Amino acid sequence: MSILDRERIRLRTLQKIIDPDLARFEAELARIMAGGSPLAREICDHLQQGKSKRFRPTLLLLAAKDEAPVDQGAVVAAACVELVHTATLVHDDFIDGAVVRRGLPSVNHAWGGAAALIMGDYLYAKAIDDLCGHGLHDAVGALARSTVAMSQAEIMQVELRYSLATTEEQYLQVIERKTASLIATACELGASFHPRVRTERAAFGEFGRKVGLVFQITDDIFDYLGDERRLGKPTGQDWEEGRVTLPLIAALRQAPAAERAAFLDACSDRRGEPWLALWPQVKAFVAAHDGVGYARALARRFGDEAKAEIAPIARGAQRELLETAAEYVIHRLN
Amino acid sequence: MSILDRERIRLRTLQKIIDPDLARFEAELARIMAGGSPLAREICDHLQQGKSKRFRPTLLLLAAKDEAPVDQGAVVAAACVELVHTATLVHDDFIDGAVVRRGLPSVNHAWGGAAALIMGDYLYAKAIDDLCGHGLHDAVGALARSTVAMSQAEIMQVELRYSLATTEEQYLQVIERKTASLIATACELGASFHPRVRTERAAFGEFGRKVGLVFQITDDIFDYLGDERRLGKPTGQDWEEGRVTLPLIAALRQAPAAERAAFLDACSDRRGEPWLALWPQVKAFVAAHDGVGYARALARRFGDEAKAEIAPIARGAQRELLETAAEYVIHRLN
Repeated sequence: MSILDRERIRLRTLQKIIDPDLARFEAELARIMAGGSPLAREICDHLQQGKSKRFRPTLLLLAAKDEAPVDQGAVVAAACVELVHTATLVHDDFIDGAVVRRGLPSVNHAWGGAAALIMGDYLYAKAIDDLCGHGLHDAVGALARSTVAMSQAEIMQVELRYSLATTEEQYLQVIERKTASLIATACELGASFHPRVRTERAAFGEFGRKVGLVFQITDDIFDYLGDERRLGKPTGQDWEEGRVTLPLIAALRQAPAAERAAFLDACSDRRGEPWLALWPQVKAFVAAHDGVGYARALARRFGDEAKAEIAPIARGAQRELLETAAEYVIHRLN
Repeated sequence: MSILDRERIRLRTLQKIIDPDLARFEAELARIMAGGSPLAREICDHLQQGKSKRFRPTLLLLAAKDEAPVDQGAVVAAACVELVHTATLVHDDFIDGAVVRRGLPSVNHAWGGAAALIMGDYLYAKAIDDLCGHGLHDAVGALARSTVAMSQAEIMQVELRYSLATTEEQYLQVIERKTASLIATACELGASFHPRVRTERAAFGEFGRKVGLVFQITDDIFDYLGDERRLGKPTGQDWEEGRVTLPLIAALRQAPAAERAAFLDACSDRRGEPWLALWPQVKAFVAAHDGVGYARALARRFGDEAKAEIAPIARGAQRELLETAAEYVIHRLN
């Protein structure tokens, strides 16, 4: 069984507890994605068939969970958060030239770049429109803020492409905006629908932000863990796309000056094919200077901070559920 | 002087009357577009330098115009409408592979497709975020509806590409969503900030919808008016992009059956270069069967309907101003 398979099973166990709410979420998502012209329906059907972990809606619904079934507003918000997430994936895949997503051909690969661009716009607009229709103004505001942050992260990624001078601070800024902001929004919005923790929604947002950082750092670590971990997905994709991530940033800092200089020298002025050919060297360098160890420790620290954020305020079963969710993200690495 | 130059001068005359409000609009637009990372600032500066007619903000501010300076909410809404419009142009240019926009290189041409996609997303998110920050929930809802419509139009355009079976009804559906919906939103939003016409905002929206239809039909006619009109921009661009517009749809309907059949036969199964080579034939066919005459008459009818919509409800100077705006759009053709 691959790491990703085990990860999926752990998440499923957690999701069992909110299955009725997740079923309502799926119904809302299907409702919002229905309709439109034949091509829109075809692509929406395709996207619906992809295997999504529903990680963001799960967190939102857990944060909204009290004794009673969660508020319908939370269910709608969860669907719209997932829609926005899907829209960003459709656009990201196009930018990265990705051919596969969630086990199926990517939209850009199957229907071309123009369709990917238009469908991303469409799904995002549908999400905002649906929230407006439900009068969920806070959710619109929170999602708009996240979307600004996510596109800022995309711009920064273009600026930092192929840059081995990328600092840990810049890296954290990018992943905070790219990944943590939407997960933070999911948790904060969820809490805003919970009758007893509503006033402490900011702390739930902070929990989500930290969980999001862990999520992206572990994703970036996965990109360095080779076949020996039977990961089930290829490594080196970030490198291929010119993204310099935490394991390499840490290894560069931890390496003796002479080795760092030699490595940087080998990489200088490379683009395209010559850059790709460096991957075995990059992997060896990161292994030799324990870049993964550093990244792993930072992920653990953010994970512990996430749990500490909600420990004093989460109510009833919610605390254990959210702690389990944080553990799940940290333990993706074990 | 080209038609487009004269058109610009007519619009400027109209805009003189609301110059102080337009200056506030420019300041708001600059405020929202400021900031961000170096690449975002660079592209925003570039976009700000492009010559935009500010047609949508002009209509919004005219609809909001009473004796006093217009409400600051209207000024912010005008800036956000223009931002959303700019975002759609950035995405459209990428889809169409356009190299020039507003007299400058298009974003996709100067910075590449990925940057165009990201910047379109960014500008759209900024607009929604800014409206949320100002508590302008109605404006958010109206803009979200328009954006859904505009992306639906883009999808329909992909579906109808190269289709000589496109009907007038389908054509009108596309242009209503692509162009008329945002102009309708501009007018409706403007009226919603006017103390005395607020309750009749729907009629202002209908006025904008009709003006938007005229605007797009005249644009599509321009694409058939050749050098003899000294238009100042090349013709046949819609055809080049596989868009079958009203002049051709009307000519196909008005032509005798034998000529229609011969024309369709000549076009059948053409794509790419062979399709482009047909343009002189297409132009001759549209001229022979008065496709432009039909389109022109329909534009006039929508223009008259637009004026009739607001004649009974617009107040004071506003009525004349809006009628002049409608006339301006109709007379782009003279």
